[in-house]
Amino acid sequence: MSRYQDLSASELARELQQLRDHYCVFQQRGLTLNMARGKPSPEQLDLSMPLLDFPAHAAGSSSDTCAILSRELRAGQPDDLRNYGELLGITEAQELMGAIMEVPAKNVVVSGNSSLALMFDLVSAAMSHGVLGSTPWQRLDSRPKFLCPVPGYDRHFAICAYFDIEMISVPLNSDGPDMDKVESLVGSNALVKGIWCVPKFSNPSGVVYTDAIVDRLAALRPAAQDFRMYWDNSYAVHDFASPIRLANIRNRCEHHHNPDLWYQFASTSKITFASGGIAALSSSQNNLQDIAKRLGLRSIGPDKLNQKRHSLFLPDIEAVYAHMAKHAALVRPKFAVVLRELDNSLGGLDIGTWTRPDGGYFISFTGLLGTAGRTVELAAAAGVTLTPAGVTYPYGQDPQDANIRIAPTYPTLPALEEASKIFTLCVRIAALEQLLRQDRTKEAETGQRRTKEDKTGHAG
Amino acid sequence: MSRYQDLSASELARELQQLRDHYCVFQQRGLTLNMARGKPSPEQLDLSMPLLDFPAHAAGSSSDTCAILSRELRAGQPDDLRNYGELLGITEAQELMGAIMEVPAKNVVVSGNSSLALMFDLVSAAMSHGVLGSTPWQRLDSRPKFLCPVPGYDRHFAICAYFDIEMISVPLNSDGPDMDKVESLVGSNALVKGIWCVPKFSNPSGVVYTDAIVDRLAALRPAAQDFRMYWDNSYAVHDFASPIRLANIRNRCEHHHNPDLWYQFASTSKITFASGGIAALSSSQNNLQDIAKRLGLRSIGPDKLNQKRHSLFLPDIEAVYAHMAKHAALVRPKFAVVLRELDNSLGGLDIGTWTRPDGGYFISFTGLLGTAGRTVELAAAAGVTLTPAGVTYPYGQDPQDANIRIAPTYPTLPALEEASKIFTLCVRIAALEQLLRQDRTKEAETGQRRTKEDKTGHAG
Repeated sequence: MSRYQDLSASELARELQQLRDHYCVFQQRGLTLNMARGKPSPEQLDLSMPLLDFPAHAAGSSSDTCAILSRELRAGQPDDLRNYGELLGITEAQELMGAIMEVPAKNVVVSGNSSLALMFDLVSAAMSHGVLGSTPWQRLDSRPKFLCPVPGYDRHFAICAYFDIEMISVPLNSDGPDMDKVESLVGSNALVKGIWCVPKFSNPSGVVYTDAIVDRLAALRPAAQDFRMYWDNSYAVHDFASPIRLANIRNRCEHHHNPDLWYQFASTSKITFASGGIAALSSSQNNLQDIAKRLGLRSIGPDKLNQKRHSLFLPDIEAVYAHMAKHAALVRPKFAVVLRELDNSLGGLDIGTWTRPDGGYFISFTGLLGTAGRTVELAAAAGVTLTPAGVTYPYGQDPQDANIRIAPTYPTLPALEEASKIFTLCVRIAALEQLLRQDRTKEAETGQRRTKEDKTGHAG
Repeated sequence: MSRYQDLSASELARELQQLRDHYCVFQQRGLTLNMARGKPSPEQLDLSMPLLDFPAHAAGSSSDTCAILSRELRAGQPDDLRNYGELLGITEAQELMGAIMEVPAKNVVVSGNSSLALMFDLVSAAMSHGVLGSTPWQRLDSRPKFLCPVPGYDRHFAICAYFDIEMISVPLNSDGPDMDKVESLVGSNALVKGIWCVPKFSNPSGVVYTDAIVDRLAALRPAAQDFRMYWDNSYAVHDFASPIRLANIRNRCEHHHNPDLWYQFASTSKITFASGGIAALSSSQNNLQDIAKRLGLRSIGPDKLNQKRHSLFLPDIEAVYAHMAKHAALVRPKFAVVLRELDNSLGGLDIGTWTRPDGGYFISFTGLLGTAGRTVELAAAAGVTLTPAGVTYPYGQDPQDANIRIAPTYPTLPALEEASKIFTLCVRIAALEQLLRQDRTKEAETGQRRTKEDKTGHAG
């Protein structure tokens, strides 16, 4: 296919007309497809059904399940797992989540079902009480600031917006955040208190931070003592094929004498169940002591039974890898469908670029300037829900109006095939509209210039 | 037995010596007994073991559990229960917790496993963002204040202490909080933002607020628009015998044109599992909208599977009552053991009073002024852990040093029998020590007065 930019105005108009006819056909079909949310599919969730089979796991095949399980639940723990206590989580769950995050179990807190909630609470705690004795951020003379590699995860940005934390966008390159910018901002401004990082299969671009980038992050010399990296390792084991190794943030930070610089987060939301999973954070002992204090005021302990369920279902990291391979087998073909359609329908047109991630939940698509909102609008009118344009940027504002996050995991393969077709069609229509508009503007400008020259001529 | 106050100094000293000998015998036995925490016993937890039998419940007796359960999990809900979503909880769980709190399901949010966490988060939200648009409490010129009926629940007070909310003690009488004080403080001071209430089987005194008290609370005319009652209905269905009806806080507030005045909390921590239960709050639609906003920033949804488990295990309020009757059968004899020992060993001595609750988890003991700390200390040295003296008061300071919370549910009956004996012994020793000290002080004062009179005589 020819680059759209090489076409004349009349060729663009003709192409647009053809695509619009095509689009109308889709529109009349009244489809309802959704490529908006990074949710596991029912088939992925089915992989973890044995997790619910608690008594069989815990009690073996005995008939007197209740008595045996009750004994089992009490055994090996300082306390009955069904009762209060164990604020930081049960040992086996700390070990499981530690293995996923590649840190020792003693550095792990397992709590609740949502790593987002753990992030929210850490930011909330820093606002009201500071970090390890620092001035509470709410008492600072100016608003605290967070660095936000973009495109990024909308829910990170929403936490900042809620707490009135100023967000500073930093480009996320193919190897990780633009470290020159990060170093300069973090090193010079004591109001810069954090950076959001999704270091492996970044949401939405799928980028994996290189060792060099992780090393530079770990070696930061922040102006603020209470600066922390919010290391959201949501996709730590979500590789499509052979595992890609991410540098170990804890080890790198210790190496660079920054032992307290990191908070790491993970959950089993996209390993077992998005609803009934377990969430964890890991950090230095110093940070954890601070965190445990607040945790102990907020609750008398986590749901240890669900933690036990998880450690029975995933007894070690090998079991996790084996389980994730089954996820990969379901997810990989879905990414392939979307990528094939992007390649086939947009390849060579030069109206967009897209990422080809090796894991995670998203493809990041970048279209022509000023076309993302229109593309999403067109898709919606044809029955395809996409993530709203802009949400991958702080304040929901993509300054280029170019980025769209595609989430291929949830729809069925046929639905995805159809949705992808509609998506590429909408991308092309939005691009053609934009190019024609630019042509007209150029013409108008040329016209104005001519008129002006004419006038000047007359006047001269 | 004679009132200790009627005994002479030498009689007191003789009694003390006898009891100390008795105490030494206990001390030498190296016991480790615990009457400190309001935890359900293993036998109580055993009552809910079928809760873990999820597949059998959900899928009947079919062999192909996985497929059926997966279908069941998806059915009847807008979304798969295993996946993200349903921020306010699944309908059946809202109905269950609504029935327990006696409010419609639409007024209920089911979230997490800890009602304490829901309280903590509401206070945290009010601090940082205010309530329904009010000034965030952290921005007030002076510290916000909470009323704390005393004796009360230490963890409520700990939340206030953490957020630097000033606590004002208000006496908790046998019918509820001293309403003259409450009305005067709430009505006159816009810094008074809340009151902690455990309206049924109050922790620790077991008091049930009368209809008249609930009505006066619901009719409050607070100086602060963002004043709320934090209605911790933890023991709503935890009656020992026939249910005692608590007036309905929602209805009373609506009746008095105070629809937004209440936040109500409950959980199944002491119904099913203290660890793997479900927690809920209920409030007006106005308040819930405010709450849901923050909830939606903090997480993508609760553990719906555990909610489903609970609604299968406890399909309606009749099932809850039937289940709680089994708890009562286990708990009632434990309270009886403690009360019998208190009656037998302390009756007639006039050195303490104690409550005789009809439900809940605690007995509140009030000894002579200045003896609670000493009693707890003596008990600890004889191997009986009691709740630290003072914790039932704000800032951990019982101004009378008289109140001790007794938690009878967790120990076995024989252990409880022994622990109660040691407890009453320690109460008596502490009382005798105190009375002898007072005698000595009186003697010294009389002596001083005599010397003074003599001197005056000489001078005259």
